[in-house]
Amino acid sequence: MSESVNRQWCLVARPTGMVQTSDFEYREAPVPVVGEGDYLVRTLYVSVDPAQRGWMNEDPGYVPPIPLGEVMRGGTISQVVESRHPDHAVGDIVSGYFGWQEYALGSAGLMGAQTITPEHPLPRYLGVLGGTGLTAYFGMLEVGQVAEGQTVLVSGAAGATGSVAAQIAKIKGCRVIGIAGGAEKCAWLTGELGLDAAIDYKHEQVGERLATLCPDGVNVYFDNVGGSILESAIAHMARGGRIACCGMIAGYNDAAPQPGPGNLFLLIARRITMAGFLVPDFAPRFGDARRDLSAWLTAGRLHAREDVQEGFENIPATFLRLFAGRNLGKQVLKVADPTGSAA
Amino acid sequence: MSESVNRQWCLVARPTGMVQTSDFEYREAPVPVVGEGDYLVRTLYVSVDPAQRGWMNEDPGYVPPIPLGEVMRGGTISQVVESRHPDHAVGDIVSGYFGWQEYALGSAGLMGAQTITPEHPLPRYLGVLGGTGLTAYFGMLEVGQVAEGQTVLVSGAAGATGSVAAQIAKIKGCRVIGIAGGAEKCAWLTGELGLDAAIDYKHEQVGERLATLCPDGVNVYFDNVGGSILESAIAHMARGGRIACCGMIAGYNDAAPQPGPGNLFLLIARRITMAGFLVPDFAPRFGDARRDLSAWLTAGRLHAREDVQEGFENIPATFLRLFAGRNLGKQVLKVADPTGSAA
Repeated sequence: MSESVNRQWCLVARPTGMVQTSDFEYREAPVPVVGEGDYLVRTLYVSVDPAQRGWMNEDPGYVPPIPLGEVMRGGTISQVVESRHPDHAVGDIVSGYFGWQEYALGSAGLMGAQTITPEHPLPRYLGVLGGTGLTAYFGMLEVGQVAEGQTVLVSGAAGATGSVAAQIAKIKGCRVIGIAGGAEKCAWLTGELGLDAAIDYKHEQVGERLATLCPDGVNVYFDNVGGSILESAIAHMARGGRIACCGMIAGYNDAAPQPGPGNLFLLIARRITMAGFLVPDFAPRFGDARRDLSAWLTAGRLHAREDVQEGFENIPATFLRLFAGRNLGKQVLKVADPTGSAA
Repeated sequence: MSESVNRQWCLVARPTGMVQTSDFEYREAPVPVVGEGDYLVRTLYVSVDPAQRGWMNEDPGYVPPIPLGEVMRGGTISQVVESRHPDHAVGDIVSGYFGWQEYALGSAGLMGAQTITPEHPLPRYLGVLGGTGLTAYFGMLEVGQVAEGQTVLVSGAAGATGSVAAQIAKIKGCRVIGIAGGAEKCAWLTGELGLDAAIDYKHEQVGERLATLCPDGVNVYFDNVGGSILESAIAHMARGGRIACCGMIAGYNDAAPQPGPGNLFLLIARRITMAGFLVPDFAPRFGDARRDLSAWLTAGRLHAREDVQEGFENIPATFLRLFAGRNLGKQVLKVADPTGSAA
């Protein structure tokens, strides 16, 4: 341990509209002292995810709110730098929810830490092999129940979860259309990711494009955005279609709730099922899912892309990139390189 | 055959807002001539149902629109009065979709006719033992998947479908709360039907009452109304809850679509599934369902109530009762008594 200062970003305001960097405050705290049976981790990579915006609210609805004044909660890839725990050796790489700080005790965090034996670049364990990849996996396969030959639509398709969800549907033999904002993202979808079509919602009419691209309707819609795109998707669902509700980023920064889709009657007329889900519910099967995802990565069937920002001081600004749609693939921030054999 | 005139109500306008009696026109046509292999039925009871409002639109979404100038489509209980078909004898009682007219050929209608051996009063075959009862049965058991001990909420609970759905949930050992408009309907729900509680949406705050009645949330919501009551129900769903979308009568007469619920994010936070359904999809199992429903009626476990109006001339006005919420139980209209042994 060479450092004595623990740099932190703390939540100091609950935003009522768009999150701002001023909702966070930079602080310096002592590095925690490691007690018997505990261990100390140093943050290597910080994950920023749209779901964190909800955790800043008074009532996120499914996890406790982040207390004001405390370190901002978030996923991390960390390295054990000191240990008085028999199962955690100095140098080990772990994933956990240690938040926006440089050092943390292994006993801290939203859930326990999990030791990783890296076979892929470390940021990938926050993306394809982390929460977003697992979300895509279970959302598309278990909630969406995609089957070969189906037409599948994914919004936020150039994002961390959407890009994996769309590729999983391709792997399963579906015709896949992605919705993303801007020509660069759309080119990535139909290029490297091999999607059948992409819709640029910033420059095209989503409804019109869906009518042209999906004359027989959409069988499975994987929704990351909600809002008007959800309404357009409902309008073009096929009979018996399924909507996997993964996220609704379009509304996360609304000061007041916006009205929902005005065409919910189509759920009845077309026998559509809309199902919300959260990935922790599938935790007992994470191991199997990671094996599949890792194998697809190795075989080149799944393409991962991380948007890696750098510098501890830039974490809040990097978080805001998500809501401006500036990230392409999984948004992460590198705090430090690993040391020792993990380097 | 003593009559030579076939009285009819025809659809002559597609309403853009609230349906009006002037959207229908009274006409007289010749009674159809019965060809070889056909048979003639006389209407005894006409069913009026909220779904018919959708069929009046240019694009109902799941059945062909009723052509302008043609007889209004609708369910009926009819009697065979002339036959040149070996399977249909004069005097037989049939259910079918012969529409708002006094006479029709057996080969006509939206679907084929089905012969009934009446064990219950005839209007009951348009209600509990007809489309609305079957809708309640499959909606509650297959779509809602109710299980013993669950808290179940039903809107439109004093209506034809809702009243049966609520009672089926009681039969299955659930705690059941009904939403209806007015003290008389609510008294019927908690009295004769044995529901655990009723909410009078015309005089009470639905959300506040749900918060009090369902502190642990609603496991299954059977939705007949949509609109603001759907939004209130979503707000009080339990984790893993299911919403069976049966109807959305609150919006059927809107000239333009109204915005939907602004709290759909709760689908994700609470892992809620919303599934639309239409009863014809369960047609292969109608026989089993009717046996259950009939047995429950006979055993006194299921209470049926029909609101029987009379007079062919009153069909359009009776239809409008549905949208004013004036019916208690299944709304039907009696055109004629059966003759012969069926009388």
